[in-house]
Amino acid sequence: MNKGYTTEEYVSLVNTALEKAAESFGDNVVAEAMKYSLENGGKRIRPILTLEFCRLCGGSAEDALPFACAVEMIHTYSLIHDDLPCMDDDDMRRGKPSCHIRFKENFALLAGDALLTHAFSSVLSCDFAKREPLRTIKALSLLAEGAGNMGMIAGQVTDLQSEGKEISSDTLEMMDKLKTGALIRASAGMGVVVAGGSDEQLEKAQLYASKLGHAFQVVDDILDVIGDEESLGKPIGSDAASGKSTYVSLLGLEMSRIYAGKLTDEALSALEFFGEESEYLKQLSQKLLSRRK
Amino acid sequence: MNKGYTTEEYVSLVNTALEKAAESFGDNVVAEAMKYSLENGGKRIRPILTLEFCRLCGGSAEDALPFACAVEMIHTYSLIHDDLPCMDDDDMRRGKPSCHIRFKENFALLAGDALLTHAFSSVLSCDFAKREPLRTIKALSLLAEGAGNMGMIAGQVTDLQSEGKEISSDTLEMMDKLKTGALIRASAGMGVVVAGGSDEQLEKAQLYASKLGHAFQVVDDILDVIGDEESLGKPIGSDAASGKSTYVSLLGLEMSRIYAGKLTDEALSALEFFGEESEYLKQLSQKLLSRRK
Repeated sequence: MNKGYTTEEYVSLVNTALEKAAESFGDNVVAEAMKYSLENGGKRIRPILTLEFCRLCGGSAEDALPFACAVEMIHTYSLIHDDLPCMDDDDMRRGKPSCHIRFKENFALLAGDALLTHAFSSVLSCDFAKREPLRTIKALSLLAEGAGNMGMIAGQVTDLQSEGKEISSDTLEMMDKLKTGALIRASAGMGVVVAGGSDEQLEKAQLYASKLGHAFQVVDDILDVIGDEESLGKPIGSDAASGKSTYVSLLGLEMSRIYAGKLTDEALSALEFFGEESEYLKQLSQKLLSRRK
Repeated sequence: MNKGYTTEEYVSLVNTALEKAAESFGDNVVAEAMKYSLENGGKRIRPILTLEFCRLCGGSAEDALPFACAVEMIHTYSLIHDDLPCMDDDDMRRGKPSCHIRFKENFALLAGDALLTHAFSSVLSCDFAKREPLRTIKALSLLAEGAGNMGMIAGQVTDLQSEGKEISSDTLEMMDKLKTGALIRASAGMGVVVAGGSDEQLEKAQLYASKLGHAFQVVDDILDVIGDEESLGKPIGSDAASGKSTYVSLLGLEMSRIYAGKLTDEALSALEFFGEESEYLKQLSQKLLSRRK
């Protein structure tokens, strides 16, 4: 078993690898836009899942890094396109002007397209792909399926179609499983595949990732309401401003808390399969799901 | 050497394979939009190049078909995104409402994203990928590089940046080489790689494809002017309506004709390397480059 990393070490590994990958983006305005959005990073949860599941299954961080970067590129492209005027029309992303505000809509569109394309080309040209072509194909296949119209994009479609409508909690659950869950699932799965893990390891890693992603979404909804309540005195359960149904608007605050707890337990229980070495992911999950903002 | 096909047979092979591929697009509005744009097909030149170069290098059409479909999906996604209001803002595509007019802008954006993603997932999950993973990785790598920000997207960027400006013929040439040439080059290259062809075969196929793509663009510019002249009486060499420089506006009609002839000769000369079996491509090239519209 390779040595474990701290979250700070993982984030630093990923950021350094992304900077290196960015050297082959070219040198035009779209390359600049790609880097801008990629650098305006979040928690890098997806790449960390790829790296850590690779480690848990006996693989090295070096082998998993190109896949970890690829999933972050795809996540970033999806945010750029989600922010566009014809989608959510968001001017800000993580406290900075969103890509189309900073670079104009046409170049933001192309930056998203180019990040999606580069996710594949960077993995396809890495050393590991030549050494382990079958694992590379299987891992990229998980990524492409998670990102495609049976995965993430299907979730975005349901999201767009349910705007301004009251939806059922089943629909909301299905939507979240696809929109955010599919890529998180692929992140974990790729780590197992790169390491040459077993089918059972793959299944457990994906189960964990599904539950984690789902729990994360419920907690997000809870924090949105608590934040709003504290700052605006908005009635709990109403999300009229965005016109979108949330777990809190559908289940109420108390039931949402219970639901988040249940999903967290299920995620942790899937981790048990990986034994003591899964302590890092256990703690990461608990930290993510008990966050205050 | 596998038997040759006629253009009609190739188009029919490709269309049947695309219809089959569309079965795994899902069943939402984006899947419908993907099929709509894919079915509104052009000449299928790119997939034909993949199939025919595979044959010329001793491979089978069956092996090359997933790659041929992938390049057509990528070509189609690029047209959908090119037509969007923030890009060329074209309401019509090949005599039908463009994707965003028919399905709304948000779903057209996602249909483009999904086609690009599906191009990779469909190849990654095909039988050939399991049987010949190294060839698959090399071929997909050519595709991703041709489609990315060092290829097609870089050409789109230069195109956007040169709108309303007088550009040099060198810039125009570089732009065309990237915007349309990079994907045509990848199409031919993939055929060679799938068949397990030599480096020299790959080089000659890509040289041919570059020259063909370039000649095609010059002929397109000539036909635009001749068509305009016949129907509108617009002065030759002016393309003021679109504000874009063309070979005719930069070189004049007569020089453009000479240039197209020179490029065609260079394309045909690269084909000679493949001997008598390249007769089909020779005729196809001549037909494409002497077309009246």
